[in-house]
Amino acid sequence: MFEVAQLGMKLSDKVYKEREKALRERLLALQFQLQSAKFSVVVVFAGVNAAGKSEMINQLNAWMDPRWLETHAYGAATEETRQRPPYWHYWRDLPAKGRMGLFLSSWYSQPVLDKVYARIDDASYQTSLMQIANFERALSDDGTLVLKFWMHLDRKAQKKRMNQLEKDPLTAWRVTDKDWENYHHYDDFIRAAETALHKTGTGQAPWLIVEGEDENYRSITVGEALADALEKQLQRQQYADKRHAESSVRLLTTQDVADNAPPAPSVHPLLASVDLTQSITPVEYKDQLAKLQARLGLLMQQAQDVGMTNVIVFEGWDAAGKGSAIRRITQALDARQFVVHPIAAPSDEELAHHYLWRFWRRLPRAGKVAIFDRSWYGRVLVERVEGFASESAWMRAYAEISDFEDELAAHGIVVTKFWLNISPEEQLRRFDERANVPWKQFKLTDDDWRNREKRPLYEQAVADMIERTSTHFAPWTLIAAEDKRFARIQILKTLIARLEEAFAQRDAV
Amino acid sequence: MFEVAQLGMKLSDKVYKEREKALRERLLALQFQLQSAKFSVVVVFAGVNAAGKSEMINQLNAWMDPRWLETHAYGAATEETRQRPPYWHYWRDLPAKGRMGLFLSSWYSQPVLDKVYARIDDASYQTSLMQIANFERALSDDGTLVLKFWMHLDRKAQKKRMNQLEKDPLTAWRVTDKDWENYHHYDDFIRAAETALHKTGTGQAPWLIVEGEDENYRSITVGEALADALEKQLQRQQYADKRHAESSVRLLTTQDVADNAPPAPSVHPLLASVDLTQSITPVEYKDQLAKLQARLGLLMQQAQDVGMTNVIVFEGWDAAGKGSAIRRITQALDARQFVVHPIAAPSDEELAHHYLWRFWRRLPRAGKVAIFDRSWYGRVLVERVEGFASESAWMRAYAEISDFEDELAAHGIVVTKFWLNISPEEQLRRFDERANVPWKQFKLTDDDWRNREKRPLYEQAVADMIERTSTHFAPWTLIAAEDKRFARIQILKTLIARLEEAFAQRDAV
Repeated sequence: MFEVAQLGMKLSDKVYKEREKALRERLLALQFQLQSAKFSVVVVFAGVNAAGKSEMINQLNAWMDPRWLETHAYGAATEETRQRPPYWHYWRDLPAKGRMGLFLSSWYSQPVLDKVYARIDDASYQTSLMQIANFERALSDDGTLVLKFWMHLDRKAQKKRMNQLEKDPLTAWRVTDKDWENYHHYDDFIRAAETALHKTGTGQAPWLIVEGEDENYRSITVGEALADALEKQLQRQQYADKRHAESSVRLLTTQDVADNAPPAPSVHPLLASVDLTQSITPVEYKDQLAKLQARLGLLMQQAQDVGMTNVIVFEGWDAAGKGSAIRRITQALDARQFVVHPIAAPSDEELAHHYLWRFWRRLPRAGKVAIFDRSWYGRVLVERVEGFASESAWMRAYAEISDFEDELAAHGIVVTKFWLNISPEEQLRRFDERANVPWKQFKLTDDDWRNREKRPLYEQAVADMIERTSTHFAPWTLIAAEDKRFARIQILKTLIARLEEAFAQRDAV
Repeated sequence: MFEVAQLGMKLSDKVYKEREKALRERLLALQFQLQSAKFSVVVVFAGVNAAGKSEMINQLNAWMDPRWLETHAYGAATEETRQRPPYWHYWRDLPAKGRMGLFLSSWYSQPVLDKVYARIDDASYQTSLMQIANFERALSDDGTLVLKFWMHLDRKAQKKRMNQLEKDPLTAWRVTDKDWENYHHYDDFIRAAETALHKTGTGQAPWLIVEGEDENYRSITVGEALADALEKQLQRQQYADKRHAESSVRLLTTQDVADNAPPAPSVHPLLASVDLTQSITPVEYKDQLAKLQARLGLLMQQAQDVGMTNVIVFEGWDAAGKGSAIRRITQALDARQFVVHPIAAPSDEELAHHYLWRFWRRLPRAGKVAIFDRSWYGRVLVERVEGFASESAWMRAYAEISDFEDELAAHGIVVTKFWLNISPEEQLRRFDERANVPWKQFKLTDDDWRNREKRPLYEQAVADMIERTSTHFAPWTLIAAEDKRFARIQILKTLIARLEEAFAQRDAV
């Protein structure tokens, strides 16, 4: 597939100068338009050593306004990154809407090199590539323009370039022993690259192969391709905005369907399966609580010692008792080990990114415990029901969320998710109670009453969520929360079981 | 000074239970009020080993709602922190408005232990303590409630507690060899602590010494003191809000004064001293630019190799050519080495913190270059002139900013600051030019025209800024920018000189 990049393409200095001038003005103008657009641009540079990847990045920085460009290059993993799943630093570095990020030695480097040096087998390599494709799809689905340039040199040209670089004292530092070692694996590298380009070159995130030998040619080729893609995306967005303005009523589909649908059954069967009559006596509760908290505290201590991270998600009806259940967990832990993240409306920085960005940002270090009071599931609950997310956005979120949790689990993070279920009658009782206790009033908002009226819609959303995102690596546990004490005991028991299971698996390995 | 904490204070379980119940409700209620308040709470725990610091933090987490509490404990420095000035991680971890942060092994640990083990002399110790006092003053000046608890045990009690902890298999891990080593330095520790408490105990950030032997007593004492302080601060704020609402017209003082003041001289003498007639021919420019960029590129490469970090600040009149000057610098650098931060209005997360927080967040790693297109000086320029900051806020900012830059310089960061000066006439010419070139129009906003009218006020603010924040460790360079090319050459020369000087100092050490 690289034959096209071995044609010896060249541009004379004269032609280059002419085209460069026009290109620069065009790029600057597009970059300015981008600033007020509602998408970001991710540009990946990969390819053969010495084919001009970093020169190209410098060139783009020189052509464009560096204030709206971000360059990210990744070296060896640091302490900070090793403690999180591999994609953590890429997510963290994603540009906000209106900005462009240039990525060098990105998510492609590790898998390709692992394959070249036979550190992973074929199946693992395919899995890594699929993960890349999923990651890039999540970005482009969110509106991000994803562009990928493969800078190419044939074996002979690479050797020539490396020799040239080595001879010049100003550039000699750029050719390392490792580079020569890679050079001797040229054929393996090309084979691995071919697979990577095949598996990850999609309509939404295409690869462009660029011949790297002639600097003039490669600069203009990359620059013009970038300008074309950016222009097209800006036009697409303008068109979409226009269409959206003309038919904004369409956004209400979920609501419309619901209004016209036959009356929903009073309780969705999945939720009806939770026996809400279960309870526990106060005496029994007190006794069990102390024992379970002691056990949980000890297990979490051990988890900290071995660097086993815990992510705990709480979702549930308003007033279902999430906050007080969380307190029963944190009471058992050392305050230095955990952090509780109450998830409310996103900040403006968060709104300018993919909706999962704010959760990637909050991933704990190895051995720590992150408790989410509401979570990324807002996408398929409140955002779905209230129409804040489009139908296609929340529909694809199930897969995006499972991918996300899969990455956590693959890194050894124990993910535990709770849905706290209560009946509408019990909810009403608790609302009334809150309304009557002065220092509990703040807990009750107009939203709470409004959400109550939409219970059937929410029940459907909850059932879909549990069905589609309960996986062996991140299972949902439905908690009967009509009796608060019973719920807390169940939650502690579930967490303990998850941890014991994780330790057993760890020992078995 | 610790005698008061050696009285053997105790609380019976019965009294404890009664007071605890009332205290918990009070703390929860206050915490809820805090959520909508416009300040944050920083609570520091320090003291003798085994005096109950971490137990106290766990207790507060159990009493309060952990969703609005953040616990920060600091161990040995990580790779990430070693590359920045010592206060970087404390700034990064400061709670947002409405939240409370509990800090353990905080900014006090290192200086006190360094003193105990004679790793620093008396003068350095005093300097460290002064730095702490400045840091805490900056927080409390910003409205943050700063509280500090010193948990105390006398030598005998400490030994007893440590023996107890060691005997219990559940707590034995908490007593390390290092703790015993510290124990043998008890007297040195107490002496160092006494100095620290004297020097940093201010009216705004007082120390409370708490006897740590009896758990009941210390829990209630700390909890009640925290509740009292929080209550008082909330009342103070309500009162201030009320007064502010009654006299909101007062906010306009700067403007008022300006309106009534005698007409200012057309150009402030400090700015008049910049000879704006200086220029350079295009041919000379081209020749010098290439040479200076090559030299700068090489120096920055060397800086990267030795981990010397650069922070470059650009301030200047609208249309003075900051953006294009920055581009002449970045063209000389590898894109992986630098990042340009355009500073516009703060995000809502940034608004919820001290104004310096967003700049601490952006400090680069060792060897990197951060270029700020506008900066923390907004506080004493636009925020002063437009009345966005109160007079007392911008007045104290000069010292805060100098402290900030001092910390950068002390960490070996090279700080270079430019003021780009142009005449009002040249500015008008450039505005008109922008208005007439389609793809430059975006650069011109209503604000620009408004700012132009306030030129005398801005000139005064610029002159004050340069006078008060030009230090030997972070000097200002005034650039005659009437001729853009001349300005760029001056900027490159200045940067080169700064770097050469930094290398010379480095070699001299």
